[in-house]
Amino acid sequence: MISETHIVLDHGSGGLLSHELVVEVITKTLGDRHLGKLDDSAVLDCPPGRLAITTDSFVIDPIFFRNGNIGKVAVCGTVNDLSVSGARPLYLTLALVLEEGFPIRDLERILEAVRETAREANVHIVAGDTKVVRRGEVDKIFINTAGVGTLDPRRPHPSVHRIEPGDKVLVTGPLGDHAIHILSLREGLGFEDRVQSDCAPLNGLIAGLIETLGPDVHFMRDITRGGLGTLLNEVQGGRPWRIEIRETDLPIKRETAMAADMLGVSPLYLANEGNLCVFVPEGAASRALETIRAHPYGRNAAIVGDVVADRRGDNGDSGYSADSRSNDVDTCTHPVVMRKTDGSLDVVEFLRGAELPRLC
Amino acid sequence: MISETHIVLDHGSGGLLSHELVVEVITKTLGDRHLGKLDDSAVLDCPPGRLAITTDSFVIDPIFFRNGNIGKVAVCGTVNDLSVSGARPLYLTLALVLEEGFPIRDLERILEAVRETAREANVHIVAGDTKVVRRGEVDKIFINTAGVGTLDPRRPHPSVHRIEPGDKVLVTGPLGDHAIHILSLREGLGFEDRVQSDCAPLNGLIAGLIETLGPDVHFMRDITRGGLGTLLNEVQGGRPWRIEIRETDLPIKRETAMAADMLGVSPLYLANEGNLCVFVPEGAASRALETIRAHPYGRNAAIVGDVVADRRGDNGDSGYSADSRSNDVDTCTHPVVMRKTDGSLDVVEFLRGAELPRLC
Repeated sequence: MISETHIVLDHGSGGLLSHELVVEVITKTLGDRHLGKLDDSAVLDCPPGRLAITTDSFVIDPIFFRNGNIGKVAVCGTVNDLSVSGARPLYLTLALVLEEGFPIRDLERILEAVRETAREANVHIVAGDTKVVRRGEVDKIFINTAGVGTLDPRRPHPSVHRIEPGDKVLVTGPLGDHAIHILSLREGLGFEDRVQSDCAPLNGLIAGLIETLGPDVHFMRDITRGGLGTLLNEVQGGRPWRIEIRETDLPIKRETAMAADMLGVSPLYLANEGNLCVFVPEGAASRALETIRAHPYGRNAAIVGDVVADRRGDNGDSGYSADSRSNDVDTCTHPVVMRKTDGSLDVVEFLRGAELPRLC
Repeated sequence: MISETHIVLDHGSGGLLSHELVVEVITKTLGDRHLGKLDDSAVLDCPPGRLAITTDSFVIDPIFFRNGNIGKVAVCGTVNDLSVSGARPLYLTLALVLEEGFPIRDLERILEAVRETAREANVHIVAGDTKVVRRGEVDKIFINTAGVGTLDPRRPHPSVHRIEPGDKVLVTGPLGDHAIHILSLREGLGFEDRVQSDCAPLNGLIAGLIETLGPDVHFMRDITRGGLGTLLNEVQGGRPWRIEIRETDLPIKRETAMAADMLGVSPLYLANEGNLCVFVPEGAASRALETIRAHPYGRNAAIVGDVVADRRGDNGDSGYSADSRSNDVDTCTHPVVMRKTDGSLDVVEFLRGAELPRLC
């Protein structure tokens, strides 16, 4: 039994109320997903192999949305970050920063989502930390999860260095749904029932894909802040090939496109929380698509573009000439482009100046 | 070159400014302490053995103090948490939540402290995350570090389950200095020059102690929030022995005692950030003390108490009787006690009702 209904400063003092909060609320709600013993560190067995380690803080606003909450996002984000490196996620840490006055019932709902998502992803919460700050020093609750996974040393893990010209670019779901759901709730746009967050742990989908394709999974990354557009620019990173995506093939819900238009942003730059970008060789692309679509979180997957050898544009012109079919894009200085529905090329740059904070 | 002098919302967008902040400020300042490759997860080699995993968020106020800052505390806290479990700290993650408007020069100073402390502790920062929230949604900067270390499988690691009656209780430094330094700065008490924070990475001291004593290091924990008093109550945790400490043997600076008195709290409940409580068998206690005192961070170490077999009190009375020498403490219901300078016994309970937020 916990003696308070709302968080007070002494829940973070390290003293009696801290102890009560950890025992009566946090570890009790996490249930079988919690492996820690309230020691400073959890000591754990770990299968041999290389380690993947990641961290992510979650500051999403609002903390509760129609089909999830900050606890679900906090588990999904870190599970997905580990999984795209080819690792099997094993252990998560959970660090809470709580505002004085935060309702303990809300904390329990968040921890229930942590537990259920961790159960789905088959990861354990092994260490935790709780800090309380005064009213106005944090907005309700921020969560950090760090994650540890292992990589099978017998097979090459997906890496940006394994991308090759000729590779196909796939996405596993519609672009921007998470961002539109959250922004719609926050800004009162009215789309929140028609566009739900895609927040999901993708380690099952990824494990199936690696099982089927093996080393043909050249590279994966989950599409989060900055959207597909920024992801492709980071992946290209000055490497000697370019990426061309096709507007017509991008899976985007009609309502998402409408909302993005109202907000003056492109779905290319909107965040997802359960959507991957995958690079595979051409010969493996249809098998990859089939495998992804067979998974509940990948039903709307699509092949959306190509990695092209020649950074000069597909007319084979030399150096800094423009692309012959569009006459408006220099693909040497702009190595990520989108073929529009009218056949012209658009530059896809890094996201800049959108000011869309707290989507995750 | 970074184009802004203060944090703007788009530093957290995942887009161009995020990329610039990570490349031009964060990884550049972390220098050789940074092993990550800006991928979602760092993939790392790890020596065989068991893993220790921990996490800690840091919300200290003020973020800069006389002999350190939030960056130093964030590395020390997690290094120490790993080390007391008997692990060798290897890898840290670093997650920043920044308030819009935060000066980038301050961020650099904090990251410089992260780098230098990580260098001293010989750990690497392997993965990071940066979120930006609007003004007023966080107070300046919060940092989370999670840590991974390995345990040598050939020797038993320190654990609360290895504490035995007859063990001696040691502390490696004066109680409460970190808390008094921070509270003095925050409340304007005027002690901040005479009492400095003891914030330090203790993995070197701990490695030396384990090297010398081996399995005789029964248990260690760093004294943080809640102080020694709370730590001893957590350690006792209903086990069939009691702990008796001696007031006269507790290392407490005169200025710390004065400041604590002004604040109406006992140094027994004040936080340190570079101070350990260690349990060793009686026969190993003087060797432990000598080893700890030989280390620069352990010069003021002391043997401060004992683990006593009988929870009923040292007069051998049965059940719920009071201690014969004090006649005021039932050591069965109060298994952590302090023998005061006048010979009487005081109950040492969990810290309650101190309301001392943001000391780490």
